Amino acid sequence: MTRKIRLGAFLPGGGQHIASWRHPDQPADGAVNFDFHRQLAQTAERGLFDAYFLADGLAASVGGTSEGGPARVAGFEPVTLFAALAPLTTHLGFIATASTTYEEPYNTARKFASLDLISQGRAGWNVVTTATEAAARNFNLDRQFPHAYRYKRAAEHVEVVRKLWDSFEDDIFIRDKASGDFYDRDKLHPADHKGEHFKVQGPLNVPRSPQGHPVIVQAGQSEDGRALAAATAEVIFTAHQHLSTAQEFYRDIKSRARELGRNPDHILIMPGVAPFVGRTDEEAREKYDALTSLIRDEDGVSLLNGLTGGTLDLTGYDLDAPLPPAPPTEGMKSRQALIRQIADENDFTIRQLFQWVATARGHYTIVGSVSRIADVLQEWFENEGADGFNILPPWLPTGLNDFVDLVIPELQRRGLFRTEYEGRTLRENLGLPFPVNRHAAARAAAQAAE
Amino acid sequence: MTRKIRLGAFLPGGGQHIASWRHPDQPADGAVNFDFHRQLAQTAERGLFDAYFLADGLAASVGGTSEGGPARVAGFEPVTLFAALAPLTTHLGFIATASTTYEEPYNTARKFASLDLISQGRAGWNVVTTATEAAARNFNLDRQFPHAYRYKRAAEHVEVVRKLWDSFEDDIFIRDKASGDFYDRDKLHPADHKGEHFKVQGPLNVPRSPQGHPVIVQAGQSEDGRALAAATAEVIFTAHQHLSTAQEFYRDIKSRARELGRNPDHILIMPGVAPFVGRTDEEAREKYDALTSLIRDEDGVSLLNGLTGGTLDLTGYDLDAPLPPAPPTEGMKSRQALIRQIADENDFTIRQLFQWVATARGHYTIVGSVSRIADVLQEWFENEGADGFNILPPWLPTGLNDFVDLVIPELQRRGLFRTEYEGRTLRENLGLPFPVNRHAAARAAAQAAE
Repeated sequence: MTRKIRLGAFLPGGGQHIASWRHPDQPADGAVNFDFHRQLAQTAERGLFDAYFLADGLAASVGGTSEGGPARVAGFEPVTLFAALAPLTTHLGFIATASTTYEEPYNTARKFASLDLISQGRAGWNVVTTATEAAARNFNLDRQFPHAYRYKRAAEHVEVVRKLWDSFEDDIFIRDKASGDFYDRDKLHPADHKGEHFKVQGPLNVPRSPQGHPVIVQAGQSEDGRALAAATAEVIFTAHQHLSTAQEFYRDIKSRARELGRNPDHILIMPGVAPFVGRTDEEAREKYDALTSLIRDEDGVSLLNGLTGGTLDLTGYDLDAPLPPAPPTEGMKSRQALIRQIADENDFTIRQLFQWVATARGHYTIVGSVSRIADVLQEWFENEGADGFNILPPWLPTGLNDFVDLVIPELQRRGLFRTEYEGRTLRENLGLPFPVNRHAAARAAAQAAE
Repeated sequence: MTRKIRLGAFLPGGGQHIASWRHPDQPADGAVNFDFHRQLAQTAERGLFDAYFLADGLAASVGGTSEGGPARVAGFEPVTLFAALAPLTTHLGFIATASTTYEEPYNTARKFASLDLISQGRAGWNVVTTATEAAARNFNLDRQFPHAYRYKRAAEHVEVVRKLWDSFEDDIFIRDKASGDFYDRDKLHPADHKGEHFKVQGPLNVPRSPQGHPVIVQAGQSEDGRALAAATAEVIFTAHQHLSTAQEFYRDIKSRARELGRNPDHILIMPGVAPFVGRTDEEAREKYDALTSLIRDEDGVSLLNGLTGGTLDLTGYDLDAPLPPAPPTEGMKSRQALIRQIADENDFTIRQLFQWVATARGHYTIVGSVSRIADVLQEWFENEGADGFNILPPWLPTGLNDFVDLVIPELQRRGLFRTEYEGRTLRENLGLPFPVNRHAAARAAAQAAE
């Protein structure tokens, strides 16, 4: 089987571009409109996307820290939203974001296991440490934990969750009505975890789904983030403006994984791409200009602050001057570096910077014809820049419809993308291995040694 | 409008009676079968039930503490399950259980607000403190917090959640595409909570649903539990074997509420009732005997331990002897007292005790014809014993179908139950008031005073 491009769809109901809610095509109430999300999920499934992906934060985006623009001040919690969408779809995966800093592993393990069971094996967990001061203040803290601490806690949190996901062996259930034997007690296992941050006995009270475990996804790009991702992630969501940096990242992660004894093919690198799709380059450019014209200054300033975890408040600065120097920060190091890199490389003023990142928050924006977009995706895919992409349609539903109706057929014509789903679970479609239950594996190993 | 009986349906997919999974009618995998839950929800809605109700625990029911019988060792997490069922129904409410001890108020507020938004105002939160040692060991503790501490924390947790649910005033959203004004910043409010157990800044990042707040439900019957319920609950789920104790409870709660300045009509008392419905009393008795015959000794012993929070392990005792004396315990005081009362009043052996409670765990079991069951419900409803009932069908789907097809028409004939839903939200159907946003109320009061 030839290698195929994997595709995630980043579909916040409030739109990707910070002014997208003002676009005539997009419902102004999209962020809290369940039926609109249903429509997006069904379109993504028609386009044979691997998964619907949602970011998340544990604080309202208000005032000077509104990363998503005002339309994202409120919305659905991702796991409940995806649970509601799961029965309305049949093959689409659902990758929800949840925090290792402000949730307990038993609760994390449980809600994802439940989503995985409801969807019959289509769940993924985007592991984040949550890097805003506003979130810390919603969870009994005056300020957030240091970056390094959050990542250590995250690694242990993921470890505990995975142990809990192996509480039930796959063949534990007997369910013999005649004898009254419901399950095999020897195939139910505690986690018995005692670590630096967590003490969790287990077992979990949700069994494994048809895919074994939800898929583990991560997005950190700092040193701590790369180390965690190489050790634990199966999909990595990443942001690059150039093939060269994407390649550096791709090779670094694959090499780290190899050193840790992992098969590098089992870590899929998926940069974010925001495509303005036209039948011609000119048509695409017109779409870009139309959206950019809808950004208000205050929303642009708020965006830059939100993107950097509330550490870059440019209120009162001359928007037509360059970016001032950065203070040291514990939050979102890699994001701040990326934003500054974009400004430096392009010699942008503050205004030009927020106009550029308003679409995709540091992800790669492509404005062009169908063949131009397909060319870029193909180039990155075939040259160690990407195993697939997270598509961030700038506005909805049109940006998604354009991609599904125009770009996906072109990728299929080039033999780069599936023409039907390969399997029923997210893992099967992504080509990721089934995680054999650790206790079943240990028993099999013991028996083989006898 | 005459007062009507309110009805909740307690529908664990694994069945209510601990041996129900062995019944020929019930799917043996019911606890983890999403489609079965869909069928149950749709039947409850056909029966015009106010709400689908699910209990919850934060530990697997294993070994000596399996309250629900072996078929409930694993299942769905209630909020994700209800989110998935919400779009497949139109009027049915969803009351999910969540813990004030092992979750953070920001997360609690958020998941219920999201469920409420997805269901367009049909969510309820059954507030529990979680009283098992097994749960404590899943959340970094060696043993659980004392009873009184849990209830103090619970009261503050509910207070914080309610503040967060008022973050957005109902008319906050402007969504004017022309001007770019998305919302009125003056109508977004922090919680600014600083208490003994929690410090939460807010605002929440989910707006209010059409019913304002999810309905608050509670079930505690201890002194601490009654005090909390009278102060904060809108629906109380309670367990009584006799009209006399139900009346004592009913009058006590209504009187406490009145003393706290609440309208006692805005606290609905709903005892649990497990009906074995027959066309005749004999047919009902046959159904009861058939289920009882399916209980294994080990599952009966495990049930009693589970019901008392793991503090009554009778393994090794003579099952045909009376119950031994109780040790002091921090967990589930009111439940243990209730179980002992049943044993004492009926002069039960251990075996007879578990056979009797196997159906309904201390709730009232009625074995009889349609008219006998309707008579009991009517008597309690008309004599200050109940405002409604939580129906616990002993096995599924038959026990639910029997109630919907036989008992509900009889209640309707007597004018005691609705013939169509009164409204679209859970509050509207329960006849509970819309909680005016506290900030909007304060502004209105200030304006009136000017």
